[in-house]
Amino acid sequence: MNKLLIVGTVAFDAIETPFGKTDKILGGAATYIGLSSSFFNVDAAIVSVVGEDFPKEHLDLLANKGINIEGIEIVKGGKTFFWSGKYHNDLNSRDTLVTELNVLADFNPIVPNAYKNAEVVLLGNLHPLVQTGVLDQMETKPKLIVLDTMNFWMDCALPELLDVIKKVDVITINDEEARQLSGEYSLVKASQKIQTMGPKYVVIKKGEHGALLFHNKEVFFAPALPLEEVFDPTGAGDTFAGGFAGYIAQSENISFDNMKNGIIYGSNLASFCVEKFGTERMEKLEKEEVIARLQQFKALTQFEIELD
Amino acid sequence: MNKLLIVGTVAFDAIETPFGKTDKILGGAATYIGLSSSFFNVDAAIVSVVGEDFPKEHLDLLANKGINIEGIEIVKGGKTFFWSGKYHNDLNSRDTLVTELNVLADFNPIVPNAYKNAEVVLLGNLHPLVQTGVLDQMETKPKLIVLDTMNFWMDCALPELLDVIKKVDVITINDEEARQLSGEYSLVKASQKIQTMGPKYVVIKKGEHGALLFHNKEVFFAPALPLEEVFDPTGAGDTFAGGFAGYIAQSENISFDNMKNGIIYGSNLASFCVEKFGTERMEKLEKEEVIARLQQFKALTQFEIELD
Repeated sequence: MNKLLIVGTVAFDAIETPFGKTDKILGGAATYIGLSSSFFNVDAAIVSVVGEDFPKEHLDLLANKGINIEGIEIVKGGKTFFWSGKYHNDLNSRDTLVTELNVLADFNPIVPNAYKNAEVVLLGNLHPLVQTGVLDQMETKPKLIVLDTMNFWMDCALPELLDVIKKVDVITINDEEARQLSGEYSLVKASQKIQTMGPKYVVIKKGEHGALLFHNKEVFFAPALPLEEVFDPTGAGDTFAGGFAGYIAQSENISFDNMKNGIIYGSNLASFCVEKFGTERMEKLEKEEVIARLQQFKALTQFEIELD
Repeated sequence: MNKLLIVGTVAFDAIETPFGKTDKILGGAATYIGLSSSFFNVDAAIVSVVGEDFPKEHLDLLANKGINIEGIEIVKGGKTFFWSGKYHNDLNSRDTLVTELNVLADFNPIVPNAYKNAEVVLLGNLHPLVQTGVLDQMETKPKLIVLDTMNFWMDCALPELLDVIKKVDVITINDEEARQLSGEYSLVKASQKIQTMGPKYVVIKKGEHGALLFHNKEVFFAPALPLEEVFDPTGAGDTFAGGFAGYIAQSENISFDNMKNGIIYGSNLASFCVEKFGTERMEKLEKEEVIARLQQFKALTQFEIELD
């Protein structure tokens, strides 16, 4: 079984959408990535940090999904990272209400020895120096390194971000971030420019409008599944990345054609994530549901044109 | 050869985009629809109206593409409909600078006798009463009636619009218009509601984000081709509709599966339309280019996931 090393936040979220609001619930990029990747036959481990206030049942939930949690440091007397946000009516934009870094402020990631030879590494959205710190601990060169980031680091830590970007194979960012990072409005041109910065594969996430995968002159598109109702978009991007990396790790195949399948799986899993608040849907998701939805993705995208 | 009857504007446009501006050039929904449908083996005819100021070479252009122009009335002493618009930097929105209805204000469409038995009718964006007026002249029931409309008629002529919508098989509108017409934010719910208003097939155009085709519980998605540069979006929606209707008319097959091919062709042709100002690209487009781009659409969307 291939190893997938995940670094990212394990956190508390409090979420408000037009459909309701939650108290502090389980959240964090690595949580969503881990849950999503657990649908594949991989040996996944999370490197993260939480405070002493973090409930054991949340850690048990991850462990029960087969995720190694040895690398989740619990800081004595510390408080867990907390994020609170309120989505606008169209669910496409949100306001951050609270960001309490807490134990994340001094996070020094330690990769468990058993995962220093992981085949696939997924660097979830975190300070670029933390992402670099994880790569520096690897004892064998991973077959694939995937990096997720956001505009915040482009604004506040661009040199450090550019440095870690040089070292990765795949970058996943949204359309606005691709434009900011490249200075190009056209996503085709943006992806070309970003490919010169390091990553040979650029995944541009467009939320409800799907995701694009670029490599050299090739491009592939995975739509988002049209849903009757999107309940809570929190974690959809991380779930997408976790599905992509989990599938690639399972299949041991880093060809462009196989990455197409990876982003279809990513989009598939993300379509479940948004159906309920927080991690609720992903916690109870069954493999059969994922397979059934794969058929929906085929019906949504496959066509047969006979050329005369 | 099947007959395709097109009703819509034949007009002058003056367009400004971040890439430049034009004087009065050939424009109008029926013009773009006609040019797009001319890539298929169909007997197409345009019903429209122009003024005496409309250059003969524009009419010749359409005729030379094999389009019957007998139904384009030339009003003695009249002036042709003129629209002028300026696109914003992202090309996703625009301001209308000038709308001079001129001869369109009193347009009374007359369907040539030879097309009163057309198999496919495409009602381009016009006052709903004009669209109804065309349907009333048909002597045999068309196999497929496609209607394009816009928010303007929802605001100003909703009862008349709802009346003509009842009589059509396919409606093509953009995402915001689908939301306005249905009162539903979710495009899935919006399409379900619109299907109860008449059209059994709902095509929702999302511009650079592609197009969705809904029918009962089925849904299909055609992406827009990611382009290095979009030069001028004018006419893209009409080109899309013309490609869809032209393909359906040629293939004599109104199944859902064949409509999938229709919207792929629509998206294909629209991807050329935006590459140059106005009708310039469509005028010179070769069939071989369309076929080559079809391969790009396949590469963009087709995937092979083996289920274990």
